Amino acid sequence: MSDKPQILLTPGPLTTSERTRAAMLRDWGSRDPAFINLTRRVRERIAAIAGGAETHACVLLQGSGTFGLEAAAATFIPPDGHVLIPANGAYCHRMGTIAETLGRRVTVYETPENVPPDPAELGRLLDADVTITHVAMVHCETTSGILNPLAEIAETVQKAGRSLIVDAMSSFGGIPVDVNATPVDVLIASSNKCLEGVPGIAFVVARHEILAASAGNAPSVVLDLHAQAAGFEKSGEWRFTPPTHVVAALDAALEQLDEEGGVAGRHARYRENCDVLVDGMTALGFRTYLSHNLQAPIIVTFDMPDDPAFDFNRFYTGLQTRGFTIYPGKLTKADSFRIGCIGQVFPDDMRAAVAAVSDVMQEMGATP
Amino acid sequence: MSDKPQILLTPGPLTTSERTRAAMLRDWGSRDPAFINLTRRVRERIAAIAGGAETHACVLLQGSGTFGLEAAAATFIPPDGHVLIPANGAYCHRMGTIAETLGRRVTVYETPENVPPDPAELGRLLDADVTITHVAMVHCETTSGILNPLAEIAETVQKAGRSLIVDAMSSFGGIPVDVNATPVDVLIASSNKCLEGVPGIAFVVARHEILAASAGNAPSVVLDLHAQAAGFEKSGEWRFTPPTHVVAALDAALEQLDEEGGVAGRHARYRENCDVLVDGMTALGFRTYLSHNLQAPIIVTFDMPDDPAFDFNRFYTGLQTRGFTIYPGKLTKADSFRIGCIGQVFPDDMRAAVAAVSDVMQEMGATP
Repeated sequence: MSDKPQILLTPGPLTTSERTRAAMLRDWGSRDPAFINLTRRVRERIAAIAGGAETHACVLLQGSGTFGLEAAAATFIPPDGHVLIPANGAYCHRMGTIAETLGRRVTVYETPENVPPDPAELGRLLDADVTITHVAMVHCETTSGILNPLAEIAETVQKAGRSLIVDAMSSFGGIPVDVNATPVDVLIASSNKCLEGVPGIAFVVARHEILAASAGNAPSVVLDLHAQAAGFEKSGEWRFTPPTHVVAALDAALEQLDEEGGVAGRHARYRENCDVLVDGMTALGFRTYLSHNLQAPIIVTFDMPDDPAFDFNRFYTGLQTRGFTIYPGKLTKADSFRIGCIGQVFPDDMRAAVAAVSDVMQEMGATP
Repeated sequence: MSDKPQILLTPGPLTTSERTRAAMLRDWGSRDPAFINLTRRVRERIAAIAGGAETHACVLLQGSGTFGLEAAAATFIPPDGHVLIPANGAYCHRMGTIAETLGRRVTVYETPENVPPDPAELGRLLDADVTITHVAMVHCETTSGILNPLAEIAETVQKAGRSLIVDAMSSFGGIPVDVNATPVDVLIASSNKCLEGVPGIAFVVARHEILAASAGNAPSVVLDLHAQAAGFEKSGEWRFTPPTHVVAALDAALEQLDEEGGVAGRHARYRENCDVLVDGMTALGFRTYLSHNLQAPIIVTFDMPDDPAFDFNRFYTGLQTRGFTIYPGKLTKADSFRIGCIGQVFPDDMRAAVAAVSDVMQEMGATP
């Protein structure tokens, strides 16, 4: 890697602010009243961002977002549950693998990676199989960057009387969501995406009644969110050692989200980042993998150029020499690469990134 | 909490160096070659510290130390395994709870909290029950600070042909251990104890053959150390988002451990910290809970004074006003409090802590 400080245009971990990183310069006693206060503030802020201040609890968990997903599946899908997963990417399928490993029954409703699930078809599947107890969906599937139809699916699931679990990993904080207006029982995300914290914490926003009814479901001690929530309620403390510095950084990041005008303000910036990127890359001749109406302002997938002069490794390191780190590879079945729009990056950074892309293409003598 | 910067005399998270914390001021792409290098270096250093560079692999895991314990139990004790746990404190019993929750058969050999297990008795228990496949022990039980007889137990377990799992959470890096000289199959610890990193990573040092034979044991995706190790072997990358800043801090902390003369150098400092603390407190009239020969230089438990003028909450906040944060409560069954000797603290800090204790006692008008 180049020694030049990098702007990360990745799906997260991403570029954070200096202020967020500086919040890690202090050591905290994890059972000290000051840290208990900090934990409480973070939990309340996240529940409020989700629109669930009165109805949902925010349960913080050590680990990456995937730890939160497994904990949610283990805690909220009972051993005799059956989960339907609309799937159009790697993260949807991962949720299926997790639920299956936990011994839960799984049915997958698959669509191509550039096609959202059809809420009507989902409704038919629910009607046709009364054993299905839960639907688990990915809000923004970062495999491609597609935004899945949360509101329509939530309505369908509610009408069918089932419970909805939403992996909002890459959208939470960057795309408005309200777990009551759009009824969601359980929402999972992490510290290091659109909240612009550093990685190390997952969290689950869960409806109080669902949480209360989940005791004894999890075949795990550390991933049992019912027990984790009970710990927070009892003493305000984490059951097991929290990543204190990461929690402090998240607290600072949430303060900055507030100052930016909350999720609406952040969404506007990400939208502009995305537009600048897509317009600039399109002007250079690149093609987006998704049609415009399906594109979330989180990460953009571009078709891999088929010019033999184009070499992805040279492209990747060429961008690093110019100060930009993108995701080093692809997740879609189609040949592609991705550039992120999220984190502490601004439209001017996106313009500079497009200029760097143009420069590297010229250096390679390649056309998109 | 007082706004005064605190020296943490806790069992961890603990006081880290400025250099370790400053290592968190940079953002990393988690799949970038530079971060892959950093991860490799940390894994190699930890395996070497354990004396297992040739024979064992270091598998890093997101989360707290307890996540590492559950992952080790899930991965290395097969579903039909049976684990014997010598128990003299809360962390020993927690390991039993974890194994039981995972559906593993557990037998507990309990001794009082101030009495180490008897290796001969452990040997008799192993001889008497051929269904026991594993022994899982805690090296330094931080409930009391007792050092359990690792070498003798390891020899007994090896003679009996069983597999030994060691929770070295609070001792690793501060007390020399060699997983070959003292045969240990699986050792678990975390970033935020005697390695003096910040919290957010657990790690498991596992014998190559044991790791290779463990596929399919874990009833979990995220806690499956066989799959986690395979990920590191395949690409050098973490399977799921790593706490990048915490990994960078651990790398910096390991460099400083080297500079201090490795585990031997650090052990000498902790030993001196502990002696200064125990001598100073004893001179004030406090009594240690453990007899001297059982005391690890990690954390010291003192009997709670029975003078009615002594109020633990005033004691705790009085010490904070003077810049020292201790553990706010007790874990032993006996009434006690604890003061830690580990972290980026030095004999002069321990002398100052004893002076602060003397001061607070005088303020309360209490005698130990």
